[in-house]
Amino acid sequence: MCRNKKNTFFSIVIIFCSITMLHAQKASDEKIEIKIDSILALLTTEEKVAMCHAQSKFSTPGVERIGIPELWMSDGPHGVRSELNWDNWEYANWTNDSITAFPALTCLAATFNPELSKDYGVNVGEEARYRKKDVLLGPGVNMYRTPLNGRNFEYMGEDPYLASIMVVPYIQGVQQNGVAACVKHYALNNQELWRDHINVEVSDRALHEIYLPAFKAAVEKGNVWSIMGAYNQFRGQYCCHNQLLLNKILKDDWQFDGVVITDWGGAHDTKEAIFNGLDIEMGTGTDGLTTSTKNAYDSYYLANPFLKLLKNKEVSEDYLDDKVKRILRLMLRTSMNPNKSFGRINNIEHLNVAREVATEGIVLLKNENNFFPISPTKKLTIAVIGENATKSMTLGGGSSELKAKSEISPLQGIKARFKNATIIHALGYASGPSAYGRVIPSELDAKKLQQEAIEAASEADVVLFVGGLNKNHFQDCEGADRQSYELPFNQNELLNNLLKVNNNLGVILISGNAVEMPWLPKVKGLMQAWYLGSEAGHAIADVVSGDANPSGKLPFSFPKKLEDNAAHAFGELSYPGDSINQYYKEDILVGYRWHDTKKIEPQFAFGEGLSYTSFKMSNINTDKKTYAKTDEIIVSGNVSNIGNVDGKEVVQVYVGKPKSKVKRALKELKGFQKINVEKGASKDFTITINPSDLAFYDETISDWSLEKGDYIIYVGNASNSVSSTIKIRMN
Amino acid sequence: MCRNKKNTFFSIVIIFCSITMLHAQKASDEKIEIKIDSILALLTTEEKVAMCHAQSKFSTPGVERIGIPELWMSDGPHGVRSELNWDNWEYANWTNDSITAFPALTCLAATFNPELSKDYGVNVGEEARYRKKDVLLGPGVNMYRTPLNGRNFEYMGEDPYLASIMVVPYIQGVQQNGVAACVKHYALNNQELWRDHINVEVSDRALHEIYLPAFKAAVEKGNVWSIMGAYNQFRGQYCCHNQLLLNKILKDDWQFDGVVITDWGGAHDTKEAIFNGLDIEMGTGTDGLTTSTKNAYDSYYLANPFLKLLKNKEVSEDYLDDKVKRILRLMLRTSMNPNKSFGRINNIEHLNVAREVATEGIVLLKNENNFFPISPTKKLTIAVIGENATKSMTLGGGSSELKAKSEISPLQGIKARFKNATIIHALGYASGPSAYGRVIPSELDAKKLQQEAIEAASEADVVLFVGGLNKNHFQDCEGADRQSYELPFNQNELLNNLLKVNNNLGVILISGNAVEMPWLPKVKGLMQAWYLGSEAGHAIADVVSGDANPSGKLPFSFPKKLEDNAAHAFGELSYPGDSINQYYKEDILVGYRWHDTKKIEPQFAFGEGLSYTSFKMSNINTDKKTYAKTDEIIVSGNVSNIGNVDGKEVVQVYVGKPKSKVKRALKELKGFQKINVEKGASKDFTITINPSDLAFYDETISDWSLEKGDYIIYVGNASNSVSSTIKIRMN
Repeated sequence: MCRNKKNTFFSIVIIFCSITMLHAQKASDEKIEIKIDSILALLTTEEKVAMCHAQSKFSTPGVERIGIPELWMSDGPHGVRSELNWDNWEYANWTNDSITAFPALTCLAATFNPELSKDYGVNVGEEARYRKKDVLLGPGVNMYRTPLNGRNFEYMGEDPYLASIMVVPYIQGVQQNGVAACVKHYALNNQELWRDHINVEVSDRALHEIYLPAFKAAVEKGNVWSIMGAYNQFRGQYCCHNQLLLNKILKDDWQFDGVVITDWGGAHDTKEAIFNGLDIEMGTGTDGLTTSTKNAYDSYYLANPFLKLLKNKEVSEDYLDDKVKRILRLMLRTSMNPNKSFGRINNIEHLNVAREVATEGIVLLKNENNFFPISPTKKLTIAVIGENATKSMTLGGGSSELKAKSEISPLQGIKARFKNATIIHALGYASGPSAYGRVIPSELDAKKLQQEAIEAASEADVVLFVGGLNKNHFQDCEGADRQSYELPFNQNELLNNLLKVNNNLGVILISGNAVEMPWLPKVKGLMQAWYLGSEAGHAIADVVSGDANPSGKLPFSFPKKLEDNAAHAFGELSYPGDSINQYYKEDILVGYRWHDTKKIEPQFAFGEGLSYTSFKMSNINTDKKTYAKTDEIIVSGNVSNIGNVDGKEVVQVYVGKPKSKVKRALKELKGFQKINVEKGASKDFTITINPSDLAFYDETISDWSLEKGDYIIYVGNASNSVSSTIKIRMN
Repeated sequence: MCRNKKNTFFSIVIIFCSITMLHAQKASDEKIEIKIDSILALLTTEEKVAMCHAQSKFSTPGVERIGIPELWMSDGPHGVRSELNWDNWEYANWTNDSITAFPALTCLAATFNPELSKDYGVNVGEEARYRKKDVLLGPGVNMYRTPLNGRNFEYMGEDPYLASIMVVPYIQGVQQNGVAACVKHYALNNQELWRDHINVEVSDRALHEIYLPAFKAAVEKGNVWSIMGAYNQFRGQYCCHNQLLLNKILKDDWQFDGVVITDWGGAHDTKEAIFNGLDIEMGTGTDGLTTSTKNAYDSYYLANPFLKLLKNKEVSEDYLDDKVKRILRLMLRTSMNPNKSFGRINNIEHLNVAREVATEGIVLLKNENNFFPISPTKKLTIAVIGENATKSMTLGGGSSELKAKSEISPLQGIKARFKNATIIHALGYASGPSAYGRVIPSELDAKKLQQEAIEAASEADVVLFVGGLNKNHFQDCEGADRQSYELPFNQNELLNNLLKVNNNLGVILISGNAVEMPWLPKVKGLMQAWYLGSEAGHAIADVVSGDANPSGKLPFSFPKKLEDNAAHAFGELSYPGDSINQYYKEDILVGYRWHDTKKIEPQFAFGEGLSYTSFKMSNINTDKKTYAKTDEIIVSGNVSNIGNVDGKEVVQVYVGKPKSKVKRALKELKGFQKINVEKGASKDFTITINPSDLAFYDETISDWSLEKGDYIIYVGNASNSVSSTIKIRMN
């Protein structure tokens, strides 16, 4: 990783790189508020209404007559999407819109490294700025509730604390470029199936403890400038104009001063949109209806229907002014920010950050007899089997699809690193060429592909199986959920047959979701490698070769079977619902909270991840045994690297409340720290927990409540690997 | 006009209007030079070559990896063209690209008012800035040589001095927005026929005295940041890579530090493009060849072929660096200028300037028995006859075509003003609907249209004939020349027939060119009204009603017949040439120089234009009778308004050299001043002439030469209306 860091330092872009505008920002905030009022006074009702809805697929109008620029948005969160036509979903075939593809957010979460999240945000923000985008539609922090959700790969895992810590620097990084982050999808868009209408019923407690904390952190700590409403309904009202979510929680309780933007086509009612906290309506269907003489966007809920209610005095202009003030605030922070940088794209520093996140996010899950790393100096025959060794993972997946300037496939990365080895490759299976059409090869073709792979495996010293899911429809892709927990395209059968001819086999799983692993006992190694972006192959080669020591940790649990997942433990009304409603019956017991509490052993646990070295934790203690509410709880200890290579370990601190007046998870993540320890060395750590983080959401008072009494602090390197437990007392 | 001025003062855009960056510019020029060198050192050869050619129809690349933004260009000069697709000429059907259409540059020239040229430049530059354009492709200052040139309407007339004075403030106005003007088409693109290959042969003297002065002023006085090469050849070499024009005259003699851009598709040879002063190649045909995987722009003369010569060391990188330094200088002045405003569009101030230029550019040419103005208080029946009363003149014409947010037709303008009158309208003739296809109505249709018009005229108290040319192919339109000097679409016959039933008839001629006027003796009034842009109808109504007193003067001569024009006096080799070559046989005797010197009376003379009031000039004198080369010649006098309304007069100072060692025009414009005089009042004027302006270009020494001896100074209000002659002596 030193290589990457060095390049960053030697950056030649002294003159034009984005300047840190964070400090200047504070001072300019007051000026912005003054400007908002003076601009607002100049605007006509028509101009203000026009600002509340799209003028094209991805832009909203400014006020041209007085020089208020437009707002341009772009899909994220893994890079800046390529240009589309004005009013349809076809790509515009520009040639200046290839970009750096950063790893998927599941990978970023797996790094457990907030500094990398900052780097990611700064860099993707620079790319947005160069592309003249004012709003980057990301990051996504919907909670990982079921491994079938087609869009989990865009989010930050199953734990609200992890997501809260990781989302903040991403937002700050993006926004220091004068580009707004747009945290999404607020809220409860935890499945793609029926997302455009399904009504989610969930307890207040689960809402506040599980599904909202990352959004709250984005607002309160990240100062995010915009937020995207979810498609689905919550308690019978669409999230894009949901009184409780938007007006009560987001704008009143959290004091959000930014802009609520619909997901594309997420508005359904003019009065609700006016009264319930929506600010900008995007994406309501007008495909191709706009011509140079007709503006189809006038038919939006927040366009002519809104204007009519204002003109008829059925709606006070105060509602409009509140929206427009927020929109002007967003503009003054972005498109009208005179200090914004020019940004940059496709520079080596961006590639290096993409690679660093990718490398550090890869999770080593099994490593029998030190199968990994494989030395590049050896003259081996390595069979690289599997479609994902060569398939583009930046194409497909829905709105997060990218036109990557470069994308190193796993096969290319391995070939480039293992110069002394003979690399042979076979697809083994094929998912079809299209991202959206699922082309299943004929039985004959499938047999032929499998046979070729078996032959390749039988000739090899080592087999690397690079499979998993992909970005096709019904896989890790927006708009639909997976239809099965098992690996698709007969990969389980293929793996079994490969193992029959060569059991010196390691699996590199490319996916954004957990999968069933019937072949796990028989394989020697397993890496969870996510969608890694432009530098995918190099990052994989970094870890496989041992040039990098893996330090990723799972941001979500891998259940052994689908029924072991909490969302699937309560029948169809819990997932996927009856197409009208669904009920989050597992309540707060999402992910490892379920596995821990219900003692259902997962295949791999939240926070789990191996290293090429070994770490030992010692001297773990708290600064006190008894705490007042106003204290900080300081957990300290020591990590020793007792193996043979340098490495990074993630110290994880969970807290449980054995006796409580409410149902509790056995333990919940409340702190973590990633520590770099050279071989033979040891390092001290201190992790600080604020007692307010131990509170539960008390539905009887509709507020957070911190119980007195005993708490157990668990310190370890995974949710299922605890080195020390410490009992403390809250007074 | 007070109305417009007032609105400008009451402008509400205090906060966001463009700030005058002229003074700041001087200081930043030095910083720019330092930045250029530091950036250049960072660039690869490939990156530098890429900057020298298009990446799309209207953009060139920056250097994305270090945050050098792209350059975006837009056709002008009368407004900012609407958006096109990436790589073909189809409009992109955006809905945010409607703009203010300003009057054609012939109209601006006819105002003889440099202050209005500044306003025009500032305002069209603001529109370009809001539309995120870095280079506005205008103004055009090719000399008016023949009334058949299809593109004369985009230029500033036949006199090099008038064009030189008018072009400078336009450029300064545009550029104070951080938008480059791109003066065009350099040089000798004085006809559209065979423009893509015709070779122009012209004497050095005519080149320097007639065809280059406006370009020289643009560079030396206007500090224009870019210039567009012409399509045609000059002395056997294409103008876009013409050693004499670009390297010798423009870059060496005039010290131009900006960028030479081809006209679209104007490059024809890689080595000439490299060595002969071209900097950016645009528009070489690739329509539709570009896809997301293939960049057709790599085939440009200044793309891969250039790169190959550099890589083979056949061409020194110094040639490349010179181009790139110029391009970086342009970028630092525009796309990278952090102080640039946001611009604005379609604001009332822009409309007002468009209207003011239009109103002040209209030239009253005949006014028998005070036919004009027509009082709006009278209960008249007014027949408005002619297709140009309703035809859009912002559509068509070629690259200067605009998508006007609004365009008031003459009929609309007259109807809005003459509320007490009964306005009846008949087309009279039809040119067909298309700008490029010339649809001639069938004989039956034509007869019916004419009959309707005759009936309308016979019922009316007053007939206003609104005809002329239009923006169709073979009219005032890029890409072809007019095919005849007479009015098209049988308008002469129509006019004769109208006059038979109602001789209380005035003609409002909409055109950018002179036309034959066989009906002139029989009509009561005649106004030359140009292409007037968004406010056309209001401007015409301003003048027709007398709300504005006309003060425009012809910027070119109207010969009685085509053969009276100098370019047509020498047969086909002079115009249009033999398709390979053409010879400017009239040499320096262009326009009024020809009419004056050869004593060929024009129909209307250069500088001619009536008023609703009368002016008297008196006390005209020079400060001395004998001058040294280092003196200034100060011409002073007095203008009295002896009529009944306020008005503006243009005092014009011409100078002749009766005895000379070279052929001389009788007189040449060397100074003018537009003076506003209230009725009954009088005003003094002083006009200063620099003796160097009296020099001729001496081909024997290839330099300017100021002859000693007697000169005659002619002071008047038209080239054919001289109040005073004064003999002076140069020592």
